Amino acid sequence: MQQGQMAYDRAITVFSPDGRLFQVEYAREAVKKGSTAIGIKFKNGVVLLSDKRVRSKLVEQNSLEKIQLIDDTVATVTSGLVADARVLIDFARIGAQQEKITYGSLVNIENLVKRIADQMQQYTQYGGVRPYGVSMIIAGTDSIGARLFDCDPAGTINEYKAAAIGIGKDAVNNYLEKEYKDDMSESDAVTLGIKALKASVEDPADFKPPEVATISVGNKIRIFTKEEVEKYL
Amino acid sequence: MQQGQMAYDRAITVFSPDGRLFQVEYAREAVKKGSTAIGIKFKNGVVLLSDKRVRSKLVEQNSLEKIQLIDDTVATVTSGLVADARVLIDFARIGAQQEKITYGSLVNIENLVKRIADQMQQYTQYGGVRPYGVSMIIAGTDSIGARLFDCDPAGTINEYKAAAIGIGKDAVNNYLEKEYKDDMSESDAVTLGIKALKASVEDPADFKPPEVATISVGNKIRIFTKEEVEKYL
Amino acid sequence: MQQGQMAYDRAITVFSPDGRLFQVEYAREAVKKGSTAIGIKFKNGVVLLSDKRVRSKLVEQNSLEKIQLIDDTVATVTSGLVADARVLIDFARIGAQQEKITYGSLVNIENLVKRIADQMQQYTQYGGVRPYGVSMIIAGTDSIGARLFDCDPAGTINEYKAAAIGIGKDAVNNYLEKEYKDDMSESDAVTLGIKALKASVEDPADFKPPEVATISVGNKIRIFTKEEVEKYL
Amino acid sequence: MQQGQMAYDRAITVFSPDGRLFQVEYAREAVKKGSTAIGIKFKNGVVLLSDKRVRSKLVEQNSLEKIQLIDDTVATVTSGLVADARVLIDFARIGAQQEKITYGSLVNIENLVKRIADQMQQYTQYGGVRPYGVSMIIAGTDSIGARLFDCDPAGTINEYKAAAIGIGKDAVNNYLEKEYKDDMSESDAVTLGIKALKASVEDPADFKPPEVATISVGNKIRIFTKEEVEKYL
Amino acid sequence: MQQGQMAYDRAITVFSPDGRLFQVEYAREAVKKGSTAIGIKFKNGVVLLSDKRVRSKLVEQNSLEKIQLIDDTVATVTSGLVADARVLIDFARIGAQQEKITYGSLVNIENLVKRIADQMQQYTQYGGVRPYGVSMIIAGTDSIGARLFDCDPAGTINEYKAAAIGIGKDAVNNYLEKEYKDDMSESDAVTLGIKALKASVEDPADFKPPEVATISVGNKIRIFTKEEVEKYL
Amino acid sequence: MQQGQMAYDRAITVFSPDGRLFQVEYAREAVKKGSTAIGIKFKNGVVLLSDKRVRSKLVEQNSLEKIQLIDDTVATVTSGLVADARVLIDFARIGAQQEKITYGSLVNIENLVKRIADQMQQYTQYGGVRPYGVSMIIAGTDSIGARLFDCDPAGTINEYKAAAIGIGKDAVNNYLEKEYKDDMSESDAVTLGIKALKASVEDPADFKPPEVATISVGNKIRIFTKEEVEKYL
Amino acid sequence: MQQGQMAYDRAITVFSPDGRLFQVEYAREAVKKGSTAIGIKFKNGVVLLSDKRVRSKLVEQNSLEKIQLIDDTVATVTSGLVADARVLIDFARIGAQQEKITYGSLVNIENLVKRIADQMQQYTQYGGVRPYGVSMIIAGTDSIGARLFDCDPAGTINEYKAAAIGIGKDAVNNYLEKEYKDDMSESDAVTLGIKALKASVEDPADFKPPEVATISVGNKIRIFTKEEVEKYL
Repeated sequence: MQQGQMAYDRAITVFSPDGRLFQVEYAREAVKKGSTAIGIKFKNGVVLLSDKRVRSKLVEQNSLEKIQLIDDTVATVTSGLVADARVLIDFARIGAQQEKITYGSLVNIENLVKRIADQMQQYTQYGGVRPYGVSMIIAGTDSIGARLFDCDPAGTINEYKAAAIGIGKDAVNNYLEKEYKDDMSESDAVTLGIKALKASVEDPADFKPPEVATISVGNKIRIFTKEEVEKYL
Repeated sequence: MQQGQMAYDRAITVFSPDGRLFQVEYAREAVKKGSTAIGIKFKNGVVLLSDKRVRSKLVEQNSLEKIQLIDDTVATVTSGLVADARVLIDFARIGAQQEKITYGSLVNIENLVKRIADQMQQYTQYGGVRPYGVSMIIAGTDSIGARLFDCDPAGTINEYKAAAIGIGKDAVNNYLEKEYKDDMSESDAVTLGIKALKASVEDPADFKPPEVATISVGNKIRIFTKEEVEKYL
Repeated sequence: MQQGQMAYDRAITVFSPDGRLFQVEYAREAVKKGSTAIGIKFKNGVVLLSDKRVRSKLVEQNSLEKIQLIDDTVATVTSGLVADARVLIDFARIGAQQEKITYGSLVNIENLVKRIADQMQQYTQYGGVRPYGVSMIIAGTDSIGARLFDCDPAGTINEYKAAAIGIGKDAVNNYLEKEYKDDMSESDAVTLGIKALKASVEDPADFKPPEVATISVGNKIRIFTKEEVEKYL
Repeated sequence: MQQGQMAYDRAITVFSPDGRLFQVEYAREAVKKGSTAIGIKFKNGVVLLSDKRVRSKLVEQNSLEKIQLIDDTVATVTSGLVADARVLIDFARIGAQQEKITYGSLVNIENLVKRIADQMQQYTQYGGVRPYGVSMIIAGTDSIGARLFDCDPAGTINEYKAAAIGIGKDAVNNYLEKEYKDDMSESDAVTLGIKALKASVEDPADFKPPEVATISVGNKIRIFTKEEVEKYL
Repeated sequence: MQQGQMAYDRAITVFSPDGRLFQVEYAREAVKKGSTAIGIKFKNGVVLLSDKRVRSKLVEQNSLEKIQLIDDTVATVTSGLVADARVLIDFARIGAQQEKITYGSLVNIENLVKRIADQMQQYTQYGGVRPYGVSMIIAGTDSIGARLFDCDPAGTINEYKAAAIGIGKDAVNNYLEKEYKDDMSESDAVTLGIKALKASVEDPADFKPPEVATISVGNKIRIFTKEEVEKYL
Repeated sequence: MQQGQMAYDRAITVFSPDGRLFQVEYAREAVKKGSTAIGIKFKNGVVLLSDKRVRSKLVEQNSLEKIQLIDDTVATVTSGLVADARVLIDFARIGAQQEKITYGSLVNIENLVKRIADQMQQYTQYGGVRPYGVSMIIAGTDSIGARLFDCDPAGTINEYKAAAIGIGKDAVNNYLEKEYKDDMSESDAVTLGIKALKASVEDPADFKPPEVATISVGNKIRIFTKEEVEKYL
Repeated sequence: MQQGQMAYDRAITVFSPDGRLFQVEYAREAVKKGSTAIGIKFKNGVVLLSDKRVRSKLVEQNSLEKIQLIDDTVATVTSGLVADARVLIDFARIGAQQEKITYGSLVNIENLVKRIADQMQQYTQYGGVRPYGVSMIIAGTDSIGARLFDCDPAGTINEYKAAAIGIGKDAVNNYLEKEYKDDMSESDAVTLGIKALKASVEDPADFKPPEVATISVGNKIRIFTKEEVEKYL
């Protein structure tokens, strides 16, 4: 039993003297251990990529799919505690259906992201619960066009041109800050994403073909087959 | 893990022997780390300004907008935890709609600010929650004229001629105390705000064009375009 | 972080071995930091005075008004946490309206004070809350004549001929004990109050014209204008 | 901050290893600091006396009255936290009205005392509350004749010929054990009470005329005027 | 403040490593401090006795009566916290009435004792409460004949031929184990009880005439007068 | 006060670092202090035996009966806290009635045991309660034939050919593992049980005739008289 | 009492500074002590195996069956706390019935597993409960074909070709990673499972015939008889 371990079995989320919420920061540590995921906007669309970590061949690979549909035109990729992520994705799917029933059109992605983020914020302010140990990239198209958001355990939202979460977040962001261009073509965006993901892997031998999906205005989400992904490698 | 960190994961808001509420003071520390925001009254109106901190170019700049409309005639700018701010702004918007449904006229800004502040006060007196980690400047026009309030994590309200919150609060206030004049013109007020904001930035190279919005009696809120802001620089 | 600070973020109000309620005593410390306020009975009336501390000229002076109406014939002045005070004043106003709806006459001030004090007492006996960090002087006229009460964080009530709360409480009380006379005229009472307030300020240069209001039998509360106050200085 | 102070801000009422309830014992300490009160039965009646401690002349003396009517034929005098006492007295008055509505006759004092004591006992057995910091002498007349009870923070009741509570309890009881006689006249009982009270004051100069009230079968409670009391001194 | 005192202000009832419930054991300590009470079966009946401890002559002796009727045919005598005992006796009286309303005959004493004991057991298993600090001897007659039970703070029930509780429990039980005989006459049982009680008092001078009551099949409970008791001394 | 005692007054049931539930293990310690009880299947039936510990002759021996009927065809014998056992037996009896009302036939013993065990499991997983300090042997006959289960404080169930609980559990089990045979006659099973019970008593002089009951298919439970038991000794 | 033991009687599930949930990790330790269980997919079906640990011959062997039916086409095998497992299996059976009532066809196994896993996740995020101390392998056939999932105390789900839980998990997985082949015949899968289980037992003498069940598309679950299992040994 390591030093300090005992105390952290009993905490609730409150401010530290310097104005920090430790439980939220610790939840972010859980996110930092998750697999790397990336979202990149291109002209009229977004591409999502998720690292495939090496796992036992006994696992059905499709059960590890990180890119999840929320609706025909909205998808998400998450890092952190997978059980927490599953619960939030279900929450998001119900929210998306409610939006469609109420407004009868494409899901407004910004509204949907706020619903999720509000849920996450509550778990940082009320007792008797812990924050969600997960960050989400939420991407899709709506009446405004292509949208790309992330949402972290604090319930903080930002809209991005390109975003990364998980263990390779900093490395991917460094790469993207240098190489990202507005109004790329879809294939340029996929190529950029794969390069950025590669750049975040220390030993190139560890790199495996990632999951890839694209969402463009007027179309449903398209999940790339393994073969389609390999064309880009 | 720093000294004392453990204990602050478990607190509720109670009095210290010298009559202080530590959790509220710690929440104020979260506010002090937020971006600087300013409100300044001019003749028949108010200007709001918010510092634009340097951030990744990968972020959609509009998703960082700090000046948020509560209603056609009321706006707010916040410092502190952005997720908490978003939740309070939604609370304020619903409150504004309720006021309008009940009284059928311009939202009474003082009443609206009290609603928000009462909500914030509750979170300092009841167990099972933490205070909101956010301060708000709320400005607008109502039947009384131009109004400018701030509200802090304790739920304390003050009405101001000119007010500042966030990391540059003290520097901006020092500047404004010297330079503020009653009944300025709108353009003088914008100029004063920009100068005050500049005065709060240590390295002039870090200064970026701020967000600016004005609210004057009989008009809806006007958000300045980047070009309109740059004319003042 | 000062010694002992941690422990006081977690307390509920219980008895100490010598029969004291520490949380109530700490709440009184918050009151002792508040601005000085005074109530003095005169023949058929009461005068309320509140110190105006030096504050930024950027603050709208009217937003700092400490003397607050509860009803046409009842007013209050408070010391301590201003957000707690605002919540209690709202509670008092609702209570006053309920009294008038039920009994259809002047608000019985003793009953009203009991309502407020009972609310404050509850917060010293039940878990999950902290005591109110505020003391109130409540004054007015009812069918009995002029009434002057104070109520502290314990929910203790006393009726006074003259009373003081806040940072200058002891100095003001010492002065009043020597100089107070029954059945003074209104102007003598105002003069006495101002002298007592002056006596509580260490450096005479810090003394500013206080807020003053009088309530006399058969009349509504009268808030003095700045000019009216200055005539007494 | 004194040693041990911290821990007592967090307790609930449970048994100590030797079978004591510390929170109840601490509440009794609060009672021991209260002003001395006495009840003495005489032939067909009871006298209540309460010490008048020296207080500021700025206080309205009637607001310090310790002898409180519960009904025409039942009165109480309390020692301890005055806000707790006020809440319990209101509880008793409502209970007395309920008894009269239900049974349509004189309030059965033993039943009434049980109601109050049951309320006090609950606050020693359930979490989330603290015990009442008050002891009550409850006296009056009912179909049985003159009755005199006390009730302490544990909710323990006893019926007495003569009883004392507060700071002078032991001194008064010592005096009464020696001097009490059955079937005294009213004036002998008043005289005995005043002598007992005097015996409990260390410095005779501190003794002030006490509050006195008598209750005798077939009559309403009679509160003595200051003049009536002074005749006995 | 004695060592270890602080910790016991915060406990709830849980198991110790060796399978004990400390709060229940501490509650039994409160019982051990109570006055001695005895129940003894005789042919077709039961006698109850309770020690009269020396108390102030200012106390109305009848208010100290320990033998309490639950119904015409069931009585109880308790040791421990008197406020807890009063609450449980009221609980028992209501239970007895419910039994009679439901079954329309003599109260089944075993059922009644189970109701009380179940209530006491609950207070040892659920949080937010402390165990009752009281043991009860419950005796009476029903369709089975004479019954004699005790119930302790754990909610444990036993049926006895003769039982004792309180400070003299062990001494009385030692005496009764030697001297008890089945099918005694009523007067032999009373004599035995008084001798056993005497045997538990260290200094014979401290012995006072006890309370005595007998319950026999077909009769209502009979409380002995002081004179009747003294015949046995 | 022994070392470590304080801490165990405040626990709730959670996992230790090595995956154990201490509160459950401590509850088992309470069971290990209980009297020994045995269940043994024979051809078409089950015998239950319970040790009679030496107790005061003042106790009515029938009030110590450990073998309790749940229904005509189901009985139980328990070890541990007797108040907890009584509450669980009542729970079981109500459950048995519900089964019979719903299904209109013999109580399915496995279902009944699951009801009890689920109740016990809940008290190991939810806060605000402690586990039950009791183990139960539940035996009877249903449409399947003779059934014999035990259920421990964790809510764990096993079905047995022969089972023991309480202080002599290990000694009895060792004996039974050697001597148990399938399809014994009833009298062989009773004899075996008595021998096993004897084997668990250190000093043969301490052995007393146990309680014995048999349940066989098509018959109601038969409680042995003292004489019937002594024939087997 | 071992070091650190006290602290773990009081925890709730929160993040540690490095983003871990200790209570979940400790629950996994309970699982690691459970008996080994295996699931292996073959062509159009799944085989489940569970180690039979050596236990007393007094236990009815069928009461130790680890392979439990959830529905005709879905079964589960668990490791960890058996009472927790029983509660979750009941939860799963109810869930399966609800699915069938709603959708009127074969139970969708992935949906069913999500229901169970969501339940388990909740117990890691909300206060007042502990996580379930159990892992489940859930297998069966639905409209997609043969499915094999596991679910751990965190509520994490994975779909597998072959999976193991309990004390022999690592040894079994090592064996399966080497020997598993897609599209085996049923008998090859059973043989592989038995070999893998044997490989996890340190002393071959400890190996006992395991429980075996197979589920293949279009058929109900088939539990192997002891004889059928022994053919494979």
